[in-house]
Amino acid sequence: MILQRIKSEGLAHNSYFLASGNEAIVIDPRRDCQVYLDLAEKYGNVIMHVFETHCNEDYLSGSIELENLTGADIYHGPGLEWKFGNTLADGEEFRLGKIRIRALHTPGHTDESTSFIVYDSVSGSQPVMVFTGDTLFVNEVGRTDLCGPGEAQRLAANLFESIFGRLLPLGDGVIVLPAHGAGSVCGASIGDREETSLGIERLLNPALQARNKEDFIKRKIAERMEKPPYFDNMARDNREGPPLLGYMPVPVPLMPNDFRYEVQKAETVLVDASAPAAFGGAHIKGSYNLALPILPIYAGWVLPYDAPLLLVLQDPSHLDQVARHLLRVGYDNITGYLKGGVESWYNTGLPVEHLPVLTVQELRVLIESRSPMTVLDVRTQAEWEQGRIEGAMHKFVGHLKEGVEDIPARIPVATTCSVGNRASLAASILLQENSRDVYNVLGSMKAWTAAGYPVVKDPVAVSR
Amino acid sequence: MILQRIKSEGLAHNSYFLASGNEAIVIDPRRDCQVYLDLAEKYGNVIMHVFETHCNEDYLSGSIELENLTGADIYHGPGLEWKFGNTLADGEEFRLGKIRIRALHTPGHTDESTSFIVYDSVSGSQPVMVFTGDTLFVNEVGRTDLCGPGEAQRLAANLFESIFGRLLPLGDGVIVLPAHGAGSVCGASIGDREETSLGIERLLNPALQARNKEDFIKRKIAERMEKPPYFDNMARDNREGPPLLGYMPVPVPLMPNDFRYEVQKAETVLVDASAPAAFGGAHIKGSYNLALPILPIYAGWVLPYDAPLLLVLQDPSHLDQVARHLLRVGYDNITGYLKGGVESWYNTGLPVEHLPVLTVQELRVLIESRSPMTVLDVRTQAEWEQGRIEGAMHKFVGHLKEGVEDIPARIPVATTCSVGNRASLAASILLQENSRDVYNVLGSMKAWTAAGYPVVKDPVAVSR
Amino acid sequence: MILQRIKSEGLAHNSYFLASGNEAIVIDPRRDCQVYLDLAEKYGNVIMHVFETHCNEDYLSGSIELENLTGADIYHGPGLEWKFGNTLADGEEFRLGKIRIRALHTPGHTDESTSFIVYDSVSGSQPVMVFTGDTLFVNEVGRTDLCGPGEAQRLAANLFESIFGRLLPLGDGVIVLPAHGAGSVCGASIGDREETSLGIERLLNPALQARNKEDFIKRKIAERMEKPPYFDNMARDNREGPPLLGYMPVPVPLMPNDFRYEVQKAETVLVDASAPAAFGGAHIKGSYNLALPILPIYAGWVLPYDAPLLLVLQDPSHLDQVARHLLRVGYDNITGYLKGGVESWYNTGLPVEHLPVLTVQELRVLIESRSPMTVLDVRTQAEWEQGRIEGAMHKFVGHLKEGVEDIPARIPVATTCSVGNRASLAASILLQENSRDVYNVLGSMKAWTAAGYPVVKDPVAVSR
Amino acid sequence: MILQRIKSEGLAHNSYFLASGNEAIVIDPRRDCQVYLDLAEKYGNVIMHVFETHCNEDYLSGSIELENLTGADIYHGPGLEWKFGNTLADGEEFRLGKIRIRALHTPGHTDESTSFIVYDSVSGSQPVMVFTGDTLFVNEVGRTDLCGPGEAQRLAANLFESIFGRLLPLGDGVIVLPAHGAGSVCGASIGDREETSLGIERLLNPALQARNKEDFIKRKIAERMEKPPYFDNMARDNREGPPLLGYMPVPVPLMPNDFRYEVQKAETVLVDASAPAAFGGAHIKGSYNLALPILPIYAGWVLPYDAPLLLVLQDPSHLDQVARHLLRVGYDNITGYLKGGVESWYNTGLPVEHLPVLTVQELRVLIESRSPMTVLDVRTQAEWEQGRIEGAMHKFVGHLKEGVEDIPARIPVATTCSVGNRASLAASILLQENSRDVYNVLGSMKAWTAAGYPVVKDPVAVSR
Repeated sequence: MILQRIKSEGLAHNSYFLASGNEAIVIDPRRDCQVYLDLAEKYGNVIMHVFETHCNEDYLSGSIELENLTGADIYHGPGLEWKFGNTLADGEEFRLGKIRIRALHTPGHTDESTSFIVYDSVSGSQPVMVFTGDTLFVNEVGRTDLCGPGEAQRLAANLFESIFGRLLPLGDGVIVLPAHGAGSVCGASIGDREETSLGIERLLNPALQARNKEDFIKRKIAERMEKPPYFDNMARDNREGPPLLGYMPVPVPLMPNDFRYEVQKAETVLVDASAPAAFGGAHIKGSYNLALPILPIYAGWVLPYDAPLLLVLQDPSHLDQVARHLLRVGYDNITGYLKGGVESWYNTGLPVEHLPVLTVQELRVLIESRSPMTVLDVRTQAEWEQGRIEGAMHKFVGHLKEGVEDIPARIPVATTCSVGNRASLAASILLQENSRDVYNVLGSMKAWTAAGYPVVKDPVAVSR
Repeated sequence: MILQRIKSEGLAHNSYFLASGNEAIVIDPRRDCQVYLDLAEKYGNVIMHVFETHCNEDYLSGSIELENLTGADIYHGPGLEWKFGNTLADGEEFRLGKIRIRALHTPGHTDESTSFIVYDSVSGSQPVMVFTGDTLFVNEVGRTDLCGPGEAQRLAANLFESIFGRLLPLGDGVIVLPAHGAGSVCGASIGDREETSLGIERLLNPALQARNKEDFIKRKIAERMEKPPYFDNMARDNREGPPLLGYMPVPVPLMPNDFRYEVQKAETVLVDASAPAAFGGAHIKGSYNLALPILPIYAGWVLPYDAPLLLVLQDPSHLDQVARHLLRVGYDNITGYLKGGVESWYNTGLPVEHLPVLTVQELRVLIESRSPMTVLDVRTQAEWEQGRIEGAMHKFVGHLKEGVEDIPARIPVATTCSVGNRASLAASILLQENSRDVYNVLGSMKAWTAAGYPVVKDPVAVSR
Repeated sequence: MILQRIKSEGLAHNSYFLASGNEAIVIDPRRDCQVYLDLAEKYGNVIMHVFETHCNEDYLSGSIELENLTGADIYHGPGLEWKFGNTLADGEEFRLGKIRIRALHTPGHTDESTSFIVYDSVSGSQPVMVFTGDTLFVNEVGRTDLCGPGEAQRLAANLFESIFGRLLPLGDGVIVLPAHGAGSVCGASIGDREETSLGIERLLNPALQARNKEDFIKRKIAERMEKPPYFDNMARDNREGPPLLGYMPVPVPLMPNDFRYEVQKAETVLVDASAPAAFGGAHIKGSYNLALPILPIYAGWVLPYDAPLLLVLQDPSHLDQVARHLLRVGYDNITGYLKGGVESWYNTGLPVEHLPVLTVQELRVLIESRSPMTVLDVRTQAEWEQGRIEGAMHKFVGHLKEGVEDIPARIPVATTCSVGNRASLAASILLQENSRDVYNVLGSMKAWTAAGYPVVKDPVAVSR
Repeated sequence: MILQRIKSEGLAHNSYFLASGNEAIVIDPRRDCQVYLDLAEKYGNVIMHVFETHCNEDYLSGSIELENLTGADIYHGPGLEWKFGNTLADGEEFRLGKIRIRALHTPGHTDESTSFIVYDSVSGSQPVMVFTGDTLFVNEVGRTDLCGPGEAQRLAANLFESIFGRLLPLGDGVIVLPAHGAGSVCGASIGDREETSLGIERLLNPALQARNKEDFIKRKIAERMEKPPYFDNMARDNREGPPLLGYMPVPVPLMPNDFRYEVQKAETVLVDASAPAAFGGAHIKGSYNLALPILPIYAGWVLPYDAPLLLVLQDPSHLDQVARHLLRVGYDNITGYLKGGVESWYNTGLPVEHLPVLTVQELRVLIESRSPMTVLDVRTQAEWEQGRIEGAMHKFVGHLKEGVEDIPARIPVATTCSVGNRASLAASILLQENSRDVYNVLGSMKAWTAAGYPVVKDPVAVSR
């Protein structure tokens, strides 16, 4: 038996390659799916089936990509009108060499959510592993808010039944293989450990410590998480079948003058994937600053799907990562990237813009000097409620574009978030209005707290 | 938390790299230890400690190699007079970033055998993983026969207490990380799945289904496993500290005439790592045929530690593997390898020898023709007892060199084993006596059985 | 300026990647063309153009593959009715960053053969490099016999003019970058050095030492080279455009019983890529033995293009190589490969066949014993004329299938070639007739000569 | 014959691996010499000899490192009192498989400078290649100023004789393999093409267009190049034998608080390898900014050899590069690097410092506003003389530390160089004095010129 976890950084998405004999399956493949073909070649396997634990919202599925390249059959759970692949019945079984796989319908995160139990025929008839999709994570359970507030209660109740009534009875020893790890937006706070079992989760997973079903549902409904606008696109495409790529496209390099030619087109959108300090030093006017750690998750909040994208990279080695991150969330519209980065741009005599950065020490001095300034906190509602700088204003970065007019004009703005990446994205959005005097706070609340500066929690400030 | 399993093929040895923050530990490192340095560099860790689950018998430890390169401290369990490193007390704890590690003395395989429990401080105070060394494997438990028959009963009793009294109480959910996988000679029949937990083993591990302690001990004592002569060297070196390498040496290529010059030296030993069919077609007179799958485990049965070794490879890509296999079991005495393989040798006009091969179909015809022939089965005693070709003679390949005179002279010999690799080694040993008429049976018992030919089991034939 | 030589082993084909600024060109791309995309990504280039030095005969061009993936324009020389791409005029120029490239029509090998001169604008107006295609190699010049005997004289005259009248006048210092290296069948004896210049070739290339044009033509016409039957297919496809792949297919692994199912189909062809000694020990009945070193060049002599191919590999690491070799010469019809190799086959109890091998020492004893035996030399006519074993019969391996009846029946046959690979292919063809008693001579003429055994040259034996 | 060029980026140093049969040599190895062992393993070669074309000044030789690992013999040219290896006589010859190598004493760059002519025995008795060390480059010849002004005339005369009297007579076709490529400080302006021959250089190399010996010498003496202070250390160590490493050390990761602990030690030196814009945004107080492109060449101008170094990297992927760059120029004193980069530092609440950057557009506005400001040009004398911003002050960055008091105090300083990397290093030096108001000009003279802003050349401004 060969089991390989394939992690997509940023999205913190796990897919799995499971093989026995000359057969293999893939669970929840990503769109850039050469990795599965490479594993199949390395281990001498034919990819027979693709299993999807649910209709994903946070990335495009690679199922039909893999079907196209290998002829594998696609299977997904009941309760959704899929436009491709085969719909499973609860309890349906598959054989794969010496392995038996059984579909276990575990609705809750979504109605069609399905887990896959693995039995090792060599060892015996007890289950040994279960692929839990977005139903059960390390230290966390799946979100139940993605189908809208009207469905949350029903889904939370289903999730409770799926976990307590269907998964945990498989036995404490069963290894749990979830679809996401730490950093994913598909769970509020997934643990950074990768190895777990039903027994560990039963004992240590905070969500599983609920006193009873009501308590569990109450906690789930109290969760405040953001739902990016692109989630609906992903869910629709994953139900109907995402556009076929055929192979992994690589953005083309553009020399500064050719890049400028493209930049000047009205519909073009500039994406600068530099870290905030570098973006602050020099960037091309009009860029969105999507630093690598936030690119996969925040691109979908701010970038249009129909406009040509132009990329600026801090390091040429980032090209592959950035291209994959965008591809996985459906951005197939990349015109090219700036060869030589922003250095080649300004070396050609072309103008750049700055975004001044502040340390938390400098921010504190400014706040204490009482000079007029808006401290704009762009974290999520949930983070904001955990503690904030006194006097700060809140607007989640994902909603900033539509709410720029809420930010007081003609007063300098200092943006903050958790460590400064989203704050820099927010600042880059504000900079797109010429008249702003904007600063980004490096390290933001993490540094502020670490430096021992005061944080207020109550009364809850109203978020705009 | 980062956990990586490093597998050494052939020995089926698992070592582990575990990291949190900028710190890492290595459990049971192998001697060619660049792999741990590479992981530390990749993940940005300092290797702080090396933990040994026990004094290994089947390979040389890389502990002092790693100490030498990184300054890490070495720790091993109580109950043995170690000549290097630090001896742990039961219950001793270490912190590693957000991880807590606790030594759990689990004697049985050996007296100093120690497991290491991992607690994830982020999740809570329950254990999440345990490195079980040679105490508990997938589907199997450790051997208790290596300290001699006089100790087996006592060790089996200890092993029972360690597993049932110390490991299983940690909880069914705890992930088990053993020191060996399928194919190792450190357990009679380890499963080929890599993922397991205490709960899975409690339910499915055959050895853990013993009715009680007496039953457990009885089963352990009834085990018949071979103990290679080099195990004592390894155990001694691993207690006293194996010779330091400093870096991974690569055997030098020798042109055919230079190779012949070395071959002609009296003390030189020739090792041909080709598959049996290729070895049969052409090999240099006097070679031991140690095909890749048996090389790591059987080298120690037949190759002297003090003679210069010369290598013949079937494919140039095998060099790294063969060199590592030999290094791990302490063969630091490799003079070089034949550049271009046996093809370059015979292309130079130098003579080669054949070892005719038989299919099981041909063997059966020969047996039925009743022409005089010794079918020599060279498997272990335990395999032999599982079933054999009627009329076959048994001598384990590891004892063949000392017992060649037992094989009837002047009658053709057809060697068999499980699939033909050890049979080819046995045939190559017999060929070193000029007068033999020897055949190797491709596929051996596996093919014989698959072809549906008869196998006898009782009365138990006497092994010589 | 970035220049990379991409070598396709076996065919000894060179393609080139040349870049300046963000632009690149590829000269004579092969069909598995991911390598050029990877270089373009690594160096940050857009592949603008594909240049073909001529319509290749020995492999399928990757031009339209690359055009399909990158949008690059294809250019080839005048004098042929191309069905795709653009036809160049002599002297046509291209700019690529700081490089200037000029097409130089150099007919001779074929009518459309064109060289490409490179000027480095930074250094000055003298040429610095020239891509010579199959016009000029290291130590050799292109063949002029591929368009048939009626054209050879005219082409040889053209080749003389192209080399002496067009290439050499560029200047001794100009670096020469040919389309083939040592081992190619596109030149009689290409040198194994890769670096050369017009000056080195002028002084050292044997073909360029001709006293005058007549002498040059005479030598060319006297050349005796084999032209594989598949050359015509390649030339046709390369003129009309080979079938598009889109991506590199990987043969699927088949378990022994599934493989047997396929083997039993009447039209299936078995290809065993093992070395002769291993093939001799065990192979599946009916296989062609195409050892790796001869596979790329001899596949086209013996394998049909319309039958499904099944592969047996000596080592799993050979899969990629074998698949590419076959793909490059147009075999898109691979059903799969035997997982686990011939070992898995015979371990399943399935029967194998042997091909006994002889050393040259054994051959000599047999010859001297005067027992009836045909020594069958299967080298090319040119090799045969260089020297042979007295009494041997000659039939080139490429013509053996059609001429099996010429080989005396009921007498044992010992096949020989240069080192034994083609002899083993020949033997595998003879074995397909059940009644044959066939031996392959390991090392063949190379070993025979190295062992100091006698070789005869005159009178020239008649080849059948 | 196998020839591989191994390029060390930054230093633009070329070493070469040349092999024939099972033997290989290495020419001018670098200190991190695993690359040569890997090539030897890949191609199946024993490294027999190490040839040094001269006693290098710009990096530490890896000769004794390689001798230590392989037992290879070291050879260098006559005219220097070497403390290790063997001294060659002019004309001494070596055989390597089918290659013949001949030492050709070519003094000029230094007295012991020696070229190595390669003859390919297969092709004939004419030379085919020559390793020219620092004697002859693409488009350039070696420096003759490194032994001091008193020796320059004599060395230039020797260089003329070596090139015109010894190298060029080998023949136009001979391939030239120099020890440096574009970007090296060992030649004033080496071309970026890698392929060349004696014929190309004879025609296109500007230095070889001298009318006669006097003209050649005059031009050489007029050259104005900087000689880093560490060159003398390198030359001494390379004559006496650099300290042995044994293996490639990897700097250890330090968490922010541990890093701070080290930073606070008085003798510690901080090296920040970020690009100028990122360094400008946030860096740790007291850092030297040595961006990757200038690190290999400028480290030796500013970093002490006896102080512990601490590294800050812009991207974790830069670690290997930075560590190698420093190792190659003899910095064996690296304490560690900051894990997580400057982000982890400020996220921990630790303070950072800014270095404001200016675009050339902003600089021009400032200059035209006539507000008090020193434009400090830190390029070399030769670059300065090619054109400068009117009113700028000149001080070469390598001499800035000793001449800080020359820079007018209390007036803002804007540093410029060619593209901004050395300007940022200069600014980081000035920032180490607390009182300075310093700006770095992104793109510097390259951007200034590209933007079409005015440059003055005469009268030559006096450099301080």
